[in-house]
Parts: sequence; structure tokens; C-alpha cells
Amino acid sequence: MAQRRPARVGDPVDAIETPALVVDLDPFERNLATMAQATQGIRLRPHAKSHKCPEIARMQMARGAVGICCQKTDEAAAFIAAGIRDVLVTNEVVAPAKIERLATLAREATVGVLVDALSCVPLLGSVAARASAVIDAYVEVDVGAGRCGVPPGPPALALVEAIAREPALRFRGLHAYHGPAQHLRAPAERRAAIASAARDARATRALIEGAGIACDIVTGAGTGTWQHERDSGVWNELQPGSYVFMDADYLRNVADAPELRFEPSLFVLAGVMSTPAPGRAIVDAGLKAFSFDSGLPQVHARRGSAGVEYVKASDEHGVLSVAATRAPLALGERLWLVPGHCDPTVNLYDYIVAVRDGTVAALWPVEARGALG
Amino acid sequence: MAQRRPARVGDPVDAIETPALVVDLDPFERNLATMAQATQGIRLRPHAKSHKCPEIARMQMARGAVGICCQKTDEAAAFIAAGIRDVLVTNEVVAPAKIERLATLAREATVGVLVDALSCVPLLGSVAARASAVIDAYVEVDVGAGRCGVPPGPPALALVEAIAREPALRFRGLHAYHGPAQHLRAPAERRAAIASAARDARATRALIEGAGIACDIVTGAGTGTWQHERDSGVWNELQPGSYVFMDADYLRNVADAPELRFEPSLFVLAGVMSTPAPGRAIVDAGLKAFSFDSGLPQVHARRGSAGVEYVKASDEHGVLSVAATRAPLALGERLWLVPGHCDPTVNLYDYIVAVRDGTVAALWPVEARGALG
Repeated sequence: MAQRRPARVGDPVDAIETPALVVDLDPFERNLATMAQATQGIRLRPHAKSHKCPEIARMQMARGAVGICCQKTDEAAAFIAAGIRDVLVTNEVVAPAKIERLATLAREATVGVLVDALSCVPLLGSVAARASAVIDAYVEVDVGAGRCGVPPGPPALALVEAIAREPALRFRGLHAYHGPAQHLRAPAERRAAIASAARDARATRALIEGAGIACDIVTGAGTGTWQHERDSGVWNELQPGSYVFMDADYLRNVADAPELRFEPSLFVLAGVMSTPAPGRAIVDAGLKAFSFDSGLPQVHARRGSAGVEYVKASDEHGVLSVAATRAPLALGERLWLVPGHCDPTVNLYDYIVAVRDGTVAALWPVEARGALG
Repeated sequence: MAQRRPARVGDPVDAIETPALVVDLDPFERNLATMAQATQGIRLRPHAKSHKCPEIARMQMARGAVGICCQKTDEAAAFIAAGIRDVLVTNEVVAPAKIERLATLAREATVGVLVDALSCVPLLGSVAARASAVIDAYVEVDVGAGRCGVPPGPPALALVEAIAREPALRFRGLHAYHGPAQHLRAPAERRAAIASAARDARATRALIEGAGIACDIVTGAGTGTWQHERDSGVWNELQPGSYVFMDADYLRNVADAPELRFEPSLFVLAGVMSTPAPGRAIVDAGLKAFSFDSGLPQVHARRGSAGVEYVKASDEHGVLSVAATRAPLALGERLWLVPGHCDPTVNLYDYIVAVRDGTVAALWPVEARGALG
């Protein structure tokens, strides 16, 4: 079911078939460099759920990342098959068939997984032992996200002690990730949320160490808050993912936020396929070309598209409003659109078209697209 | 990039790996039969953008459909490769590379496409002629949707006359589809929208026939309104797609709407992966497992899940609210979730798992998944 490639290496950008997922390599590489520079002295383990693309993971590793994060066992399998040798699944894995696969992967690479239930520990331990593998176990602590994880403090210690009793599990540390904080609008709100998370994570680590158990890693953070975790003195590993691409939602938070100094590098290149009335044009990219959970795509302003706004989507169409003060759009004209939310948008495409200086430089397979299991 | 199969034929339903896209064959086949019965005496050309699955298209053809609709050239290619011999692309195709492919397809199968711009007609005609193909051309009339299409009346006639001048194009009729009307909440609103669309389509057809040009087909309609088009005396071909599956959005409109007598047959089977606190459980299906443009997934009530509600999604997680009055959900427990919007949800999966009587009866590849071009 993999689809036709939307371009060939060496093609001019104008020859890319629309709609296509395009990465502009100059800002993309600046984003990689900025994060590598800003995280010197702390472990960077970028989240690969954003890009699902081994080529990008290799670029991150080459710039100093210690490994990558994934959310799904099947994502981990795709990256390990592509040669990445250190993968943390930042998620609970409870289905026996998935644990079996995870244990098999742990024989090829360093594989970590989260735990937030005592009842899961013996199964994880016994499957790993039977596979002659060692799985790194991290206790997920709910530091304010209200999703998975045990409460800070004693419940986390109880889990750590259960993990320590399993010879095929290696307790590595705490997973303390505050997802909703990434998207809070005000910088002060984000700072306060991570300050609170830091108190919870610090106290939990102290409790574990007080019980005589080493807690080597405290891992977490995302593109919206990573600087706060970095500077907290609690976290020693950071997991940002979206910084490589950015998206319209994160870009709305950029003002007054030095931690969001990244540039948009990911675009859906869309083509005008109908100009039915003054002030309205239709592009060939709709609900199957973007994820709309975080709002509409934004027309990229630096591409000569002032006065054009993406105002409505249906499955295969996007309706553009075109200001009367500008030239009308022509059939076949192309727009560079910044997705509202990068992660689930990338998941809609088989290829990322990497461009530089007006030319297609590479086609990167999105190997873990659709890796749901 | 195609993913691991989530089940094998003959597996019990409990062995399907989550998350998975599942079709319950009994209601699914009843939906097929209901529509086939209700459209006797009129051409049924179901929209395959909903299912993207040749296996389902073949079942529709076997029950009397005259052909299928697609929205994209690449979708048409997938269905024609699978043996479907009559495909209408219910969309404008303006990019030269896509027109080339369309013309090639038109040598293998009956292929139709929409036109809403005079400037496109000569290119479409010359490419078809060079390919020694004949492409069926339909004029798209905007009957109230405000998306693509020319206004009713003289602009449509001008297009018809341009098409008639191209030997490699065959004018087949009018495409008159009112998309937003499908989702209007009140039955009376839907009826009124289609009554207005019918006036526009009838007048335009009369104008064309008055000019001495045959207008054989008036095609359109969707799952929300098809009965009105069927009974209008104007349309003689219907294009519903979602009726095979239904979704939470269409199901909200079922009350007092005999035209929506279809049953939910499409589910995302999700697994509970964390039960972190009383009243909260987390499933393994989030923004990459459903499209959320039409709202949250609904927990299927007939599956013993009373008191459970899907309240929030992140990329790979769904947060469930669990009523205090019912038994808590257990790790590994499975829920059958009705997607908010079927079409873009199906587009996230490589396989549809078809089940009957608690057993996996078939795995259907979603061949046109990701067919954006």
C-alpha cells in the first residue's frame, strides 16, 4: 500500500507532485544544530514519534543524541531495523504479543519501556528472561499530565522495588513528562507547570535513592518546555521531538519564548485545483493531507502568499480565502502550508521530500508511518 | 512502509492486536443490501474515498453498482489495478502529470473526471487524444456547497460546449454534489438544501438540452441526503460512500431520518494500556488512530461498555472517563470505538480486519490508503 514517490532526487521543486510533505533542509538543519548546541552537557534523546523517519534519527544521532524515543513497539522495530541501537518506548506496553516483540528487539538493541502498574512487572520480567534479553524499565510518574503514570512518591518506589526483583529487567530511572504543559499558551504557565513537575520528580528520585536504589535517569520534556527541564537540575535526559519541524500550534507560542527558537521546516506543498469564484481558491490538500486536531494549516508567509488563508477543509480539499487586494491565485499555483500539528500530519505520508536551493535533495521514507501496534 | 498485519484469518477477535480497524461483517453487509435495495431503478456509483478498499468495491459492484467514485487519480489507479472497470474521479484534475496518468488509465477502464474551468478543457482533450484514450468529462456545478464548480446555468453550458469540441472527451453529464448538506443536523435542513440543489441542477440540464446537447447523467448525493436526490427526478446516479460504515457524526443524525437507516459497522478496536486512577483509563488509540475533525470517537454501547466515555486524545493515547457506578476497566480490556469520521480514519490503516461471529473472516488491504496524488 506504499504510494508512488511524489518526486525524484534532482527534480526542481516545481516538479514535486502535490500534495507532498516537504522538509526545507536549511531551517531543518538549523533546528537540529540549535538543539544539539543547547543540550550540550545533558542527554538528548529526541522523540521519533514526530518524524517516524530513520534518516532523521541518524542525523540526530550524528549530532550527539544518545538514542531516540518511540511511542509504539512497531515504531521501535522500524528504527532498530534501520540500525538505531538505543530506543526508549516512552509508553506502557501491556499486551503479551507486544511484550514478546519488545523482548526480541532488546536482544538487538538497548530497549527501554515504561511501567505504571505493579501487575505488569512480572510478565515483563518473565518474557524478557525467556528471551534471554534485558529490558530497561522506567517508572512513569504522573507529574501533572493526568494521563498515564503512578503518583509521585511511595507508589513509584513500590514499582521500582518490584522491577528490582526481576533479573531480566534493569531499573533505569523515572519518566516524568508533562504533555499538556508543552502547549500552554503563556510562557509563565509553561514554566510553572514544569516547576511543579520538577518538585514531584525530585522528591520521587530522593525517595528511591533513600531506599538504596540508584536512579540514574530522569527523562522527559518536549519542544514547548525543554529549556525548563534542562535547567531544573532534576532531569538529565530530554525528549523533544517537534523541534525538528515545528508546526502552526508551536509557532503560535514563539513570541517571548526563547525555548521555541526553532523555525518551520515542514510543509505540505499543495496545488490550486479550482478557482471557482473571486476570493476563493481550492487546493488539493484536506483532511487526509493534514491533521486538524490543533487547528488549520497556515499559509507560509515568506513564500509570496500574503492575503491567502486556509479557512476550511473537507476530505480532499482545502478552501482558501484570497484577499481582494492581491492577485488571484492561478490553477496549478503551489502553496507552502505549515501543518497545525506536525506528528499526526507526518503519519499521513509515505515520503518526506527534502529540498534545498529549489531542488529535491532526497526522498526519506517515513518507515514508521502507520506503526500503531 | 506497509505495516504488520494485526491479525490472521481464523483468529478469534480477542487475538486481534490493538489498535486495529475492524469491520463487523453482519451490519456491514446489511448496509450494502439496504442501499442496493433502496436504489433499484437508479444508478448507484458508491464513493470509494470512504473505504479505499478494492475488496469492498467488488462487493458493491456485485450488488449492482455501476462503478465507483474516487477523489484522486492515484485512488483511481489503485482500483483500476484491482480490476474495477468504471471509475469516476469526482474532482478536478489540473496538473499535467496527473492528467497523463488519467489518460493512461482511460485506456484500461471507463474513466470520468470533473471540469470547472474553461482553461482546463483543451489540455485534458489533447492529452487524452495523444494517449488514444477517451475521457468522460462531467461539468461540476456548484449547487450550494461553495467549494469547486461553476455556477448553475450559462457558465455550465459554456463548459459543455468546450468539451463537445474535444474529440477525445465525451461529455457525460453534470456533477451536482452538495457536501455540507450531508452533515446538517436537522432533517428539514438537509431536505431544503437538496431541494435548492435540485432546482439548480434541473435548470442547468434544461439549458444544455435546449442547446441540443445530450446530458445523460446527473450525478451526486451522499450518505446524509441520498434519498432526497433519489426522489428528486433530477439525479439519476447516486454517490454515497459512508453508508457502508457509518460514523459517530452521521449516527448523531439518525433520529427521524429514514435515509440514515444504516448501522455502525466500522470500529477501532482499542486496548486499555493504563488504569492510573479511579475513573480514568487510557487506551492505545489517539490522534494517529482516528481522525478527530468531526469529534471524538464514541464507545460502542452494545459491547458492554456502559459508563465509559472517550474524553480526550493525544497522539498515541485516548483518555477514557469511567463512571464510578460501573466496574473499572482492566489492563488489556478491549473497547470498540466508532470513529467520529470514517473516511480520514480509514486512511490511517493498512488493513481492515473483517470479523464475523467472533472470528477474523478476512484481512482487506486498504490499497488506496495515502493515495493523495
